[in-house]
Amino acid sequence: MSKSPIGIGLLGMGVVGGGVASTLDQKRDQLTALIGCPLDLKGVLVRDAAKPRAQKLPHGILTTNAEDIFNNPEIDIVVELMGGQDPAFDYIRKSIDQGMHVVTANKEVMARHGPDLLLAAQDRNVQVLFEASVAGGTPIIAPLMRDLVANEIIGIRGIINGTTNYILTRMANEGADFDATLKDAQALGYAEADPTNDIEGIDASYKLAILATLAFRARVRDTDVFHEGITKLTARDFQYADELGYAIKLLAIANSSEDGVQARVYPALVPQDMMIAKVDGVLNAVEIEADLTGNLLFHGAGAGALPTTSAVLADVIDIARNIVSSVAPPPSLSLSDDVRIRSMLELETRYYVRLTTTDRPGVLAQVGTVLGDLNISIASAIQKEMDDQAKQAEIVLMTHRASEAAMQQAIQRLNALDVVAEVGNMIRVEEW
Amino acid sequence: MSKSPIGIGLLGMGVVGGGVASTLDQKRDQLTALIGCPLDLKGVLVRDAAKPRAQKLPHGILTTNAEDIFNNPEIDIVVELMGGQDPAFDYIRKSIDQGMHVVTANKEVMARHGPDLLLAAQDRNVQVLFEASVAGGTPIIAPLMRDLVANEIIGIRGIINGTTNYILTRMANEGADFDATLKDAQALGYAEADPTNDIEGIDASYKLAILATLAFRARVRDTDVFHEGITKLTARDFQYADELGYAIKLLAIANSSEDGVQARVYPALVPQDMMIAKVDGVLNAVEIEADLTGNLLFHGAGAGALPTTSAVLADVIDIARNIVSSVAPPPSLSLSDDVRIRSMLELETRYYVRLTTTDRPGVLAQVGTVLGDLNISIASAIQKEMDDQAKQAEIVLMTHRASEAAMQQAIQRLNALDVVAEVGNMIRVEEW
Repeated sequence: MSKSPIGIGLLGMGVVGGGVASTLDQKRDQLTALIGCPLDLKGVLVRDAAKPRAQKLPHGILTTNAEDIFNNPEIDIVVELMGGQDPAFDYIRKSIDQGMHVVTANKEVMARHGPDLLLAAQDRNVQVLFEASVAGGTPIIAPLMRDLVANEIIGIRGIINGTTNYILTRMANEGADFDATLKDAQALGYAEADPTNDIEGIDASYKLAILATLAFRARVRDTDVFHEGITKLTARDFQYADELGYAIKLLAIANSSEDGVQARVYPALVPQDMMIAKVDGVLNAVEIEADLTGNLLFHGAGAGALPTTSAVLADVIDIARNIVSSVAPPPSLSLSDDVRIRSMLELETRYYVRLTTTDRPGVLAQVGTVLGDLNISIASAIQKEMDDQAKQAEIVLMTHRASEAAMQQAIQRLNALDVVAEVGNMIRVEEW
Repeated sequence: MSKSPIGIGLLGMGVVGGGVASTLDQKRDQLTALIGCPLDLKGVLVRDAAKPRAQKLPHGILTTNAEDIFNNPEIDIVVELMGGQDPAFDYIRKSIDQGMHVVTANKEVMARHGPDLLLAAQDRNVQVLFEASVAGGTPIIAPLMRDLVANEIIGIRGIINGTTNYILTRMANEGADFDATLKDAQALGYAEADPTNDIEGIDASYKLAILATLAFRARVRDTDVFHEGITKLTARDFQYADELGYAIKLLAIANSSEDGVQARVYPALVPQDMMIAKVDGVLNAVEIEADLTGNLLFHGAGAGALPTTSAVLADVIDIARNIVSSVAPPPSLSLSDDVRIRSMLELETRYYVRLTTTDRPGVLAQVGTVLGDLNISIASAIQKEMDDQAKQAEIVLMTHRASEAAMQQAIQRLNALDVVAEVGNMIRVEEW
């Protein structure tokens, strides 16, 4: 049977948009065979229609006016690859209103408005798919929704920001400090000119909000995710972590229990023999803990033109096959809206604390008293002479499990001690 | 909307069947919510209906007569969990002929008859799903078919037999020999009384045939997969491998190139810093190399009642949702039937060779001449005195890339040398 082509509208023609356009062209025959009809690019929204482009594009499909996409009756599926909240959110909304299916890689929009968009799509009988919004080319959203659907998800732990993992990997391997490594990453194109979203953990918090919402079937917003970046990490922290048998990774973690959902992004010490400790460079990994299947790890490319294209096209093909067989979109996920979000202060974990102190007798005793008063017990301590002239020493403590509330107070009280020059860093420890 | 229940027939009530039955009962409400109607167990085929069972089962659904399942008009989906070729294959076939959907965990049947069963299912307009047949609770089949559908798959490399990975992990950690470790694994229930299928790589070859067929969209039969078991590995091999920076794993590997498909299962040396080298115990991992997304690793439980239940129920829910929304089963995979299967002799890789030789001058030169004549060059050599009295030495060679055909000849010629008492082992090296 030969069917009429399915029309694709592309919003954005950057790195990923270019990958999608090229692949649609290069794999045209295979895609046609998989779907039962061709995928035809019918419109591409760009900022500058005159700019020379590497991709072979059908004549006359570039436009700088978004309305040309929404009003094109030949377009069945809109692929949004602009990124950022505005105007992408409006454009996705308009596509749905026009009865178009949507595939998006937009983590910010999906973290903030995903559930609303899915409801709107259901009303209009169209699909909104977003596999590429988390972990790029590594499948995680479809596996959560399909393969693990019989499971209750207990926890998610992931490395879902390639830029920071690249920086942390280099700091660990080279003993380099943060600022120098960031500059180098920027020069090499692994970090953006304004790296805030990545290095402050904001990008990861968007992605974690998406995963937690799907996993726990409860609305978890990006603002529900605690995030702390990697800017305070020093070469010395990596050195101590290594001595103690740990790697330092920016982890995105979400757990669900009777007390509610806790979602957080921060640099953490993870035991070197755990699989996730060995995820290096720009790669991503997501570990899912589920009641039936136990722990699963998905590991692979988290970004890049072709990996992201792989995820985008999986979604496009899914929708296109449904169009070809006239299948109504599956019912949208029903999400609980009254989930309790647990505060970070309720966290209980082990802590690594690095202090600069005066080098004189009794310092460790004073530090121990502050912690003991707050019910924080010390599991191990390393003390090193740091600066003989200034008579300063560096102490690294590993605590037993303690509450975040107590630890926050402890940091304040330690900073107030005469013998403490500075609390250099406090890093949470994650072991599971 | 309240819909009438979907009827499930269960063939086999062993460990996995018990897990499925219990979970259907315990998660009844969640499953109903996910699907839109309940899943009702309507018939269970067992060997002994009088045997006491842990699961709460509806009254009167046990039968020892398979015809009771096929002739039960209330059964929509047959879940086959008997294992083995006979009579499971006939039963699956009969279920399809009766217009019933099938979910199976049967790697042997799917490796041998999968493509035929899928065609038969298409004729009868029913689905046959088999996520649980490879890597148990770790999703790999649906990700290959859905998430990676836009990719061309270049290679598959996996640890897909938990029993052998458990044995190899213990041999590596404890310096133990194979026989002792196997006995212990049998006592602990990790290996069967007749362990042949596992330790000879036969089980892994079934699973690899399934994965290769799907990945390369070409019919790869279990008999197309070369397999070599782990019985010849010794504590000394692990010791040398460790000295050289390698782990030893039973790998299942399939590649596709213009020359055809090559599929093979054998113990291999893998660099210790590769993720797959760190997959320990009964866990499984499958790495997929694809043109768009690069390398992906899926890691998790490969067997066990609940993990396998997770995979079985994902398939059951998939089919049940299609039944509820009256969706016709998606068209079956079209497989090329004329793929060329490459012989093992075409393999090119590096080799580890362990020899027992007489301890006298010139031995290494003779060995080197044999290899050099066959165009095999030595990358490194370790020579150790072994038995001072017998005047024997042990030589371990690592070759550069060489052809399997040449290496097979070399082993014969080395065994014929006077100075060689025995070629202790030849292990292929896998680096990617």
